[in-house]
Amino acid sequence: MEKYREDFARDGSAGMPVAVVRAEHADQVQVAVRWAAEHRVPVVPRGAGSGLSGGSSAVDGGITISLDRMRAVEVDPASQVAIVEPGAFNVEVKRAAAEHGLWYPPDPSSFEICSIGGNLATNAGGLCCVKYGVTTDYVLGMDVVLADGTLVRLGGKQIKDVAGLSLLKLFVGSEGTLGIITRAVLRLIPAQVAGATLVSTFPTMTAASHAVVAIRGKVRASMLELMDNTSINAVEDWRSHGLDRSAGALLIAQSDAPGDACSAEIAIVRDCCEAAGADEVFTTTDPEEAALLVAGRRNTFHALEARGTVLFEDVGVPVPTLPALVDGIAEIARECGVEIALVAHAGDGNTHPVVVYDAADAASVAGARTAFDEVMALAIRLGGTITGEHGVGRAKRAALPDQVGPDVMALTRRIKAALDPDWILNPGAILPPTPS
Amino acid sequence: MEKYREDFARDGSAGMPVAVVRAEHADQVQVAVRWAAEHRVPVVPRGAGSGLSGGSSAVDGGITISLDRMRAVEVDPASQVAIVEPGAFNVEVKRAAAEHGLWYPPDPSSFEICSIGGNLATNAGGLCCVKYGVTTDYVLGMDVVLADGTLVRLGGKQIKDVAGLSLLKLFVGSEGTLGIITRAVLRLIPAQVAGATLVSTFPTMTAASHAVVAIRGKVRASMLELMDNTSINAVEDWRSHGLDRSAGALLIAQSDAPGDACSAEIAIVRDCCEAAGADEVFTTTDPEEAALLVAGRRNTFHALEARGTVLFEDVGVPVPTLPALVDGIAEIARECGVEIALVAHAGDGNTHPVVVYDAADAASVAGARTAFDEVMALAIRLGGTITGEHGVGRAKRAALPDQVGPDVMALTRRIKAALDPDWILNPGAILPPTPS
Repeated sequence: MEKYREDFARDGSAGMPVAVVRAEHADQVQVAVRWAAEHRVPVVPRGAGSGLSGGSSAVDGGITISLDRMRAVEVDPASQVAIVEPGAFNVEVKRAAAEHGLWYPPDPSSFEICSIGGNLATNAGGLCCVKYGVTTDYVLGMDVVLADGTLVRLGGKQIKDVAGLSLLKLFVGSEGTLGIITRAVLRLIPAQVAGATLVSTFPTMTAASHAVVAIRGKVRASMLELMDNTSINAVEDWRSHGLDRSAGALLIAQSDAPGDACSAEIAIVRDCCEAAGADEVFTTTDPEEAALLVAGRRNTFHALEARGTVLFEDVGVPVPTLPALVDGIAEIARECGVEIALVAHAGDGNTHPVVVYDAADAASVAGARTAFDEVMALAIRLGGTITGEHGVGRAKRAALPDQVGPDVMALTRRIKAALDPDWILNPGAILPPTPS
Repeated sequence: MEKYREDFARDGSAGMPVAVVRAEHADQVQVAVRWAAEHRVPVVPRGAGSGLSGGSSAVDGGITISLDRMRAVEVDPASQVAIVEPGAFNVEVKRAAAEHGLWYPPDPSSFEICSIGGNLATNAGGLCCVKYGVTTDYVLGMDVVLADGTLVRLGGKQIKDVAGLSLLKLFVGSEGTLGIITRAVLRLIPAQVAGATLVSTFPTMTAASHAVVAIRGKVRASMLELMDNTSINAVEDWRSHGLDRSAGALLIAQSDAPGDACSAEIAIVRDCCEAAGADEVFTTTDPEEAALLVAGRRNTFHALEARGTVLFEDVGVPVPTLPALVDGIAEIARECGVEIALVAHAGDGNTHPVVVYDAADAASVAGARTAFDEVMALAIRLGGTITGEHGVGRAKRAALPDQVGPDVMALTRRIKAALDPDWILNPGAILPPTPS
């Protein structure tokens, strides 16, 4: 039971469920939800438990429906779709697609350990989003169990479909508060071309951010990531990935443009980096070398956990304000007396400041909480969002009204009430645990 | 008043409004909606009136809110977004973006005469969707006036944003039944590379459809269209575009792959066409020649209207079933004794059968109505949709439950009731004119 209580946010909100249902088929999800509806018992859907915002934290007295046994993945290569169960890991969908020369692009850093159901529930992003979009862009169909246990089938294998309201898109990103996804039809595209990777060091994150803004104005890179000095050193301490420990900031860009356009794009990226004050620029077309560098970026969260207790941020801003966000975060860290490591899907303006603190020190805990809130407030002031891809869950619920305002919150409640009148689906995620 | 009653579907559903409000600002839309809410008067939002499913047909005793005076377009090149008012034409957004080396991809055939508001309301598609996606993929933010006159601001210039429910995506494609869009923030991307165009003739549409399926499995063409012999000759009768009148089918493909990859892609397309039994294959990199050929495809609807009265279809199927759809449509035409011209965004499995009939002949009218319904039933049987990009409107309302089933209809009604309890917003579009 214990291992079904929390997700990776470990935000302290998790209660103790009365039962965990490990469903093997959609009809078992329906039976469980019908029972819960009848007894007005909270239902928390759960995939791999790798969420970063407490979205699948267990609720006291509720049941947790784990989808971890529903892992089937079937590829229809002619239609270029994958039909997947929610417990399948993202990497399993990618692998199944690759067997047919196809590709499922969305790639959260956690793609090897996160479930597709969780990806759908949060509208997950990743590293290639900067060119290829996010989860919702690849969803053609879904089966969803509603709050009364009814299963609705939305969309299908057809690529374009505007018949009726975009219910499909409403459920994507609804974090289990409107229904439980039991099956999805995901769009695949032809396999990605092996491209080139550029790594550039900068004296500061500010300089690197300016490079990102410039690059984005000129080419559609297939990856455009940033790491700060703290992140670089945390990763190198944890396991060597060949990153330059002395760099103030590291930019990792990729181009998957076909043929000779790839080297042309990389040349433009290089020019932008140099114009923004890069120290060193390194490029490679060796896939293994590139994979090691990118793995360094992907492993940042794990590496930072070795330095202390962490709070994961996920704020995003319009791309031109990225330098202002970076500077503002550094100032918040100073003021709050905590360390804030920074990695970013920079090409999308989506950053992951990670607040590292000492859980045994009350002043450090207080500083970390303040920093967490201040970073969200800063993103909102810059016209951005408190969460670009992790979801609101429970960890960011209190800040959501500050971003969207009372009218959007009222609208959200009306939809919630219409679809889940007894408020049994994942209560406490996005919205408060009870209607009033 | 008369010219605000119907759209291009001319489906006979249009009533006589008591007033047309030509709003100049969002607050005027709010005032009109508040008045309508107070008096429980139907409100029909209207853009350019170029819709093809009766989605903006006026309602007897209602008011029509025309957005044709709200046409501002502002480009923020650093953020790569356009901030647009709903009455702006699609082409105006494209032009404004192009001034900054940027591109707004969605391109309905009617892009020169259709409004962005209508594009958003129907989640419009177009020719480049096969590679670049549809309207919803480019919407970052919207202002929406709700049924009580409240204006909500959703999203913004940030690219990734999962804060709260995907309300933005719910309003896209809602055809004015949930709210009235008064402003949108649209994502732009760097200008499209000038590419190459391939035109191939085939003895039959079936052969051409098989070519499409094969091409899609191998390359991501930036355009993949089909025209049948009737469409080709209608276009040539109307205005010469240099199309081969003797062709049983014409395939138009484009590649916008950069550099040497473009000719490589075109070579693959050529191979697929020849393997599927193409008669002649012609390629060009001359932009003017390509534009003329594509204009031929775009002008089909207008050209067919010269042949008789028309009913516009918009059915879509999973791509591998395209040949079955094409064959089935030909059979329906024979059985119903009507002409059905066929053009298609074939790479997406989205087809536009156009039923041409004699409105003065009762038998022809009856045959056309039957054919219209039979084509939708066929698409549903093939696992597809009654509308890929035009919307349900009023013309296809009766067929929607056949596609999505009673549970999805019930869910649709619950959302409608939650957002528009008095059922005043565009009554009769998607759902029946009254709740019961």
